[in-house]
Amino acid sequence: MEDIGTILAKMRATAPLVHQITNYVAMNIAANVALAAGASPAMVHAREEVVEFAGLAQALSVNIGTLDAAWAEAMEMTAQAMAASDRPWVLDPVGVGATRFRQDVCARLMALQPTVIRGNASEILALAGSGGAGRGADSADPVAAAEASARDLATRCGAVVAVSGPVDYVTDGIQGFRVANGDALMPRVTALGCSLNGVIAAFLVGQPALSATVAALAYFGLAGERAAQAANGPGSFQVAFLDALYALTPQDVTAGAKVSRA
Amino acid sequence: MEDIGTILAKMRATAPLVHQITNYVAMNIAANVALAAGASPAMVHAREEVVEFAGLAQALSVNIGTLDAAWAEAMEMTAQAMAASDRPWVLDPVGVGATRFRQDVCARLMALQPTVIRGNASEILALAGSGGAGRGADSADPVAAAEASARDLATRCGAVVAVSGPVDYVTDGIQGFRVANGDALMPRVTALGCSLNGVIAAFLVGQPALSATVAALAYFGLAGERAAQAANGPGSFQVAFLDALYALTPQDVTAGAKVSRA
Amino acid sequence: MEDIGTILAKMRATAPLVHQITNYVAMNIAANVALAAGASPAMVHAREEVVEFAGLAQALSVNIGTLDAAWAEAMEMTAQAMAASDRPWVLDPVGVGATRFRQDVCARLMALQPTVIRGNASEILALAGSGGAGRGADSADPVAAAEASARDLATRCGAVVAVSGPVDYVTDGIQGFRVANGDALMPRVTALGCSLNGVIAAFLVGQPALSATVAALAYFGLAGERAAQAANGPGSFQVAFLDALYALTPQDVTAGAKVSRA
Repeated sequence: MEDIGTILAKMRATAPLVHQITNYVAMNIAANVALAAGASPAMVHAREEVVEFAGLAQALSVNIGTLDAAWAEAMEMTAQAMAASDRPWVLDPVGVGATRFRQDVCARLMALQPTVIRGNASEILALAGSGGAGRGADSADPVAAAEASARDLATRCGAVVAVSGPVDYVTDGIQGFRVANGDALMPRVTALGCSLNGVIAAFLVGQPALSATVAALAYFGLAGERAAQAANGPGSFQVAFLDALYALTPQDVTAGAKVSRA
Repeated sequence: MEDIGTILAKMRATAPLVHQITNYVAMNIAANVALAAGASPAMVHAREEVVEFAGLAQALSVNIGTLDAAWAEAMEMTAQAMAASDRPWVLDPVGVGATRFRQDVCARLMALQPTVIRGNASEILALAGSGGAGRGADSADPVAAAEASARDLATRCGAVVAVSGPVDYVTDGIQGFRVANGDALMPRVTALGCSLNGVIAAFLVGQPALSATVAALAYFGLAGERAAQAANGPGSFQVAFLDALYALTPQDVTAGAKVSRA
Repeated sequence: MEDIGTILAKMRATAPLVHQITNYVAMNIAANVALAAGASPAMVHAREEVVEFAGLAQALSVNIGTLDAAWAEAMEMTAQAMAASDRPWVLDPVGVGATRFRQDVCARLMALQPTVIRGNASEILALAGSGGAGRGADSADPVAAAEASARDLATRCGAVVAVSGPVDYVTDGIQGFRVANGDALMPRVTALGCSLNGVIAAFLVGQPALSATVAALAYFGLAGERAAQAANGPGSFQVAFLDALYALTPQDVTAGAKVSRA
């Protein structure tokens, strides 16, 4: 795998325009995370313009958090445009196991060749058709329980699949990696996972999907570790996290990444 | 009334999934407040799934801040589902006096047996049909002016009614309490009141409505007092407030609550 | 031009209710910025109530960031109501050059006599029909390249036009000013420009449009300079920025404003 700091440096040199169609909870923090990391985020969702706008973007991040029918249609239109032009896009199937509506929308989105699918263990299990006991945005299953499903899903969809948790698991169906960076306060700040998708999407521009995804997870988790050193709770953690995303250098990331083959 | 710290401890032990249908301004901070307090928030609003999703939740918080017709319909559907299954739900009638549309929506929601209604004095006056001089989210009436209306409303709706202000007033129509915790910077941070609703909803799960509401207000206000000690203005206040919600122990809350019978 | 600190003091004494129809990314931070500055923000967008609600407001801020057809209609209805009653309103044409849909909506909004149009150089160029190489919310053109277009636009629309950048340019088509306050971290925090519109709108209430706009930009930029002294990155910058908006006195602003005739 390419050096992780180098992958970060390439992303920052490109400063890619990442089109994000995400949920209302995540919009502000996801934009701030992308800016702090060095990308250029843009949130556009209207069916009247979403495909035209996508023509300007280098990558797309789709998150179904606060879904409705009109947004689902815009997600499909935009993902279709990205897939048709071989530009990368990331799918976050928030709470896919919770309702039939989410399952249907995800089934249609998965048919549009996402480059990366990232979710928690419950979401990946639900997406793979193996159950999954999540409730809302929170996972009720350990990462290890979803690894086989992640490999199946990756093979079936031709995507990289990332399972987020205390130690993340990333696979393209053939190779697998574990990323052990992160901090226990991260799930106490809302929408950090959603925000991570935009960072993954930025890393994907012009870089191989598996190593770009691993690098994005390591960088993101390392920023969490830094933030935890300065934090007194989830409020100060979020502030320090944005500062850390901004301050971390490629050298820091290379030195601090906790990546191993699975 | 049960010990307030014990009520907090029970909520944290349950970590209830609280379904929130709230306004766009509040979504992120309301989710962060709920997570910091120890609950599990989920924002879902589409008519295609809102009732199915509500089946997973233990309580509901409805806030009409950035209302529109589709959201109002989703609020009614979800409140109906909660009422039909005796699960608690909280109504925040933001700016109800400002437009006819808000009055109509609130009238329909009040018919669905909210467990708790929380608003500022102007909103409670408007809801009780006694006028109310609010403009937008800000109250133009003192809490004392709304106490009689709060008791009437509580009796008429079978709900606990909380009037927020420098000293809050809470009543079930028979008993009344004042909660004197809080800080003058709280109204300078947007959507803290909206976020409080989600905390009240979490406290309601498996606990009596009147004491749960009083406890939630005391805990929330005490976090504001703590935050004010560390703050230089509304920006640092919000950060310290989330940290305080997270750090406050049941013992802190029992010791710091300023609750008296009214 | 009137003393800038005095313009701030008058705004705070009025604490105007500013109706904001803005994008999902900006809603929370725009409300917090308005509250920290001393105004009273209200976000309302439903066609069922937007005109009735606007009747309570003293100024309006419209931002097309996360546009769709229903929101565009609400923006037009509300701007029409403001124009018909000679109340001030501000237009922020986010990403107008990016899609045909945005161009059409902006053309309709510009016909409704905005008091102030504020955008980055690319947006002002696109609005004036002179091209503009922006992508999403970021400008790809320097401020100087948009000055002639800003003057043309101001004359044609009878509006004050402000071009945001490292040094802002403000004109009513006859006079021009440069405002050199600000900090390089500001574009690394999302939606600060969107939030500025609400501050401009508040300053416009009962004050001449050109000097009110210049004063708002100087005050906002000065808060950025203060924040930068306390910040370690974009996370802590945003926190310190809200604190600075709150703490800056009229005297501070008079002393720190970097305004010159252009």
